[in-house]
Amino acid sequence: MSNHRNLAQGYIQKNKEKFLGALKELLIIPSISTDPAHGSDMVQAAEWVASQLNAIGMQRVNIFPTNHHPVVFGEWLGAEGAPTVLIYGHYDVQPADPVDLWKTDPFTPVVRGENIYARGASDMKGQVIATLKAVEAIVNNGPMPVNVKWLIEGEEEIGSPSLPSFIEKHKDILGADFCLNPDSGMLAPDAPAITYALRGLAYFELRVHGPAADLHSGIYGGVTRNPAIVLADLIAGMHDSKGRVTLPGFYKTVRPLSKEERSELSRLPMDDKYFLENSGANVLYGEDGYSVVERVGARPTLDVNGILSGFTGEGSKTVIPAWAMAKISMRLVPDQDPEAVHRQLMEFLERKVPLGIRWELNAMAGTKASICERDHFGVRALSEALETSWQVRPYFKREGGSVPVVGLIQNVLGMESVLTGFGLPDDNLHAPNEKLHLPTWYRGIEALAHYFFILQDMQ
Amino acid sequence: MSNHRNLAQGYIQKNKEKFLGALKELLIIPSISTDPAHGSDMVQAAEWVASQLNAIGMQRVNIFPTNHHPVVFGEWLGAEGAPTVLIYGHYDVQPADPVDLWKTDPFTPVVRGENIYARGASDMKGQVIATLKAVEAIVNNGPMPVNVKWLIEGEEEIGSPSLPSFIEKHKDILGADFCLNPDSGMLAPDAPAITYALRGLAYFELRVHGPAADLHSGIYGGVTRNPAIVLADLIAGMHDSKGRVTLPGFYKTVRPLSKEERSELSRLPMDDKYFLENSGANVLYGEDGYSVVERVGARPTLDVNGILSGFTGEGSKTVIPAWAMAKISMRLVPDQDPEAVHRQLMEFLERKVPLGIRWELNAMAGTKASICERDHFGVRALSEALETSWQVRPYFKREGGSVPVVGLIQNVLGMESVLTGFGLPDDNLHAPNEKLHLPTWYRGIEALAHYFFILQDMQ
Repeated sequence: MSNHRNLAQGYIQKNKEKFLGALKELLIIPSISTDPAHGSDMVQAAEWVASQLNAIGMQRVNIFPTNHHPVVFGEWLGAEGAPTVLIYGHYDVQPADPVDLWKTDPFTPVVRGENIYARGASDMKGQVIATLKAVEAIVNNGPMPVNVKWLIEGEEEIGSPSLPSFIEKHKDILGADFCLNPDSGMLAPDAPAITYALRGLAYFELRVHGPAADLHSGIYGGVTRNPAIVLADLIAGMHDSKGRVTLPGFYKTVRPLSKEERSELSRLPMDDKYFLENSGANVLYGEDGYSVVERVGARPTLDVNGILSGFTGEGSKTVIPAWAMAKISMRLVPDQDPEAVHRQLMEFLERKVPLGIRWELNAMAGTKASICERDHFGVRALSEALETSWQVRPYFKREGGSVPVVGLIQNVLGMESVLTGFGLPDDNLHAPNEKLHLPTWYRGIEALAHYFFILQDMQ
Repeated sequence: MSNHRNLAQGYIQKNKEKFLGALKELLIIPSISTDPAHGSDMVQAAEWVASQLNAIGMQRVNIFPTNHHPVVFGEWLGAEGAPTVLIYGHYDVQPADPVDLWKTDPFTPVVRGENIYARGASDMKGQVIATLKAVEAIVNNGPMPVNVKWLIEGEEEIGSPSLPSFIEKHKDILGADFCLNPDSGMLAPDAPAITYALRGLAYFELRVHGPAADLHSGIYGGVTRNPAIVLADLIAGMHDSKGRVTLPGFYKTVRPLSKEERSELSRLPMDDKYFLENSGANVLYGEDGYSVVERVGARPTLDVNGILSGFTGEGSKTVIPAWAMAKISMRLVPDQDPEAVHRQLMEFLERKVPLGIRWELNAMAGTKASICERDHFGVRALSEALETSWQVRPYFKREGGSVPVVGLIQNVLGMESVLTGFGLPDDNLHAPNEKLHLPTWYRGIEALAHYFFILQDMQ
């Protein structure tokens, strides 16, 4: 280990109280993005982040106004020939409601035992500060071994409405080799994790139309196709008996799981019992031949998110509905293309919808899956950094959902994201008594300080 | 033809103006059962009917109060050894809204051309008066050849809420050989019709429950059964590829159609074009091997009347719904039993609902089909009477819907109903400018006067 790297670790050991103080400074600011009453708090939080970036020697530090809350940017590009990391974060937090369920005030951070309690401590002010303090530890003892850029937004908890146009407009300054996104988390205090893949999404609204108006089922029962039954037939036909999706070509571009990756995923401490307890379902079900972890993270799925047709109130009404509607969405994996899935669904419907039934398909969302393969240097370096601090090999996770900002950065900047973080599953994200486990957080700062050196070596 | 029968016909020819006057007297009374403001009109209409029954020599004429509107009863049982006919009718009418679409006031009957225009003219004050005037024509020239009872209610247009308890309470005085219900109609001025069968109904609400609460389709897509898909699978499995219902034993007790009955039904002027135009559907569909008329009237069907699950609003929400609900109903034919159909559906669900999905089935309605076979003397006599007046053989119809009072009379009094009537398809029932075609109506009175004599002969 280089002397610089050792000095950075020593700086962290000596400055834990100072880091905690900085965390408290940001946690005190009630930067609730959804509440217009907190507009000035948003600005104050953005300014606090900007001042920290300035303090650690970042250049071109800028608070960009948007239609809602400002984006904070800063960079240091002095490591010629070294890789560039874009660090993503957000300084906004969820509302604190219901406030009366908090043991202490959500915006008065309090340390109890090994935890600090405050809204945003884990999601994700603590994570943003971990990246700032890791860099601070390095730059106080020498130059950064790699180039860094920061993109810290204030709208993540309201769906990042300004981010697409911001990234589009500023893509010239946002370029990097990959994005480090510390908005994910640990599995347990002794189980660090890297999320290297996220599923994409294709979302559709399907309407099938039969008779011109609802019909009396006595007079017309036996005469005409019932659109609710036609829709049920279509939906029933979208899976085979092995739980596989039947759209033509649906699996054609699915990147297969290697034996080695399946073995890696099987290490995850998420067994059937885990999923049964967390889903509240009585039995598990999915595609034959894959474990639950694989089905959730690495295999595509098709779900019906809603259905509506005919009379659905109290009591009985004997109508044959004029139309039926379903919201149908697919979780996609690499290398599926949402537009190809759209065409597959169209083809399926063209083949299956019976004569005389008119249908409309409305594509409402389409995002590709994202993956930063485990042999990407940004992932390998992070794995080594986490193992250095924790003395255990981290878990490699594929998440079943999408993270909009990851898709956005992929689409506009053509950049993959590596996700990690130092929050724990019991941190009460978006709930009362949100907390951050401080020993884990300090260790996270240490790991990040290692990370930038390892990245340089690994390049 | 007997002298008495001829005299009755002569009486009708001489008294058409008087009959029309009586019709106007009743049409002037706005007996709108759904509107509490018309309470005294209801009483006035009931009293008018009772006075007519008294005038034609009925005995035990009584206006029975109910929780809503009174029931009028009267009888004449002097034809010893002859059959007894219970004549059903209703003196209440639909509201006249939208009143501004009427060319003339709905409760000021006006004759224009061959029609009289007023609310209730066809449905069914005109029909009730036709029965009264046919009996008047007979009793003015001698005794009634058969026994008659009258059950004229004032709540048909609001679903006859008082009738079940009334019939139950008074079943001792309502006994008869069969019921004549003139609340059906003609196919055209030269096409009289007898409705001899109605389908029954079994109506269910099915709920399937999966996870304890709506789940995120990213985190749990691939983990658990989706209740909306399970429901779609179940519904899709309720018909086979030939349009037949797959519930175990569903067709076991279905009374088959004889060649002769199929031939009779094929005479009906209701071809595919008729059903396409009237349903507003683009294609016809139903059970293989049966004509549309047969599928609607003589074959059982299963329809989905409504479905609801998950997110059905604008936009997209990526949930796996916790539950899904469908309203499912079957139109039944003789000799299906709604309770047996309930058991068949239970058995189907027990076999088909996958492990881990909880389901609930709520039976919301169950009425048997009713049929008065064409060789019943009440039907044969009516056929002969109609043919005598029209010089054409009447059409024999099986209706696809249910008529609650027919089911009620069947269940409580154990009596079949024969349905006919002298309204036309373009009479604007329940709509503005309701009318009655007077030449058809007079001919109906003639036919009914023949009917009672033929009934006596045929017994």
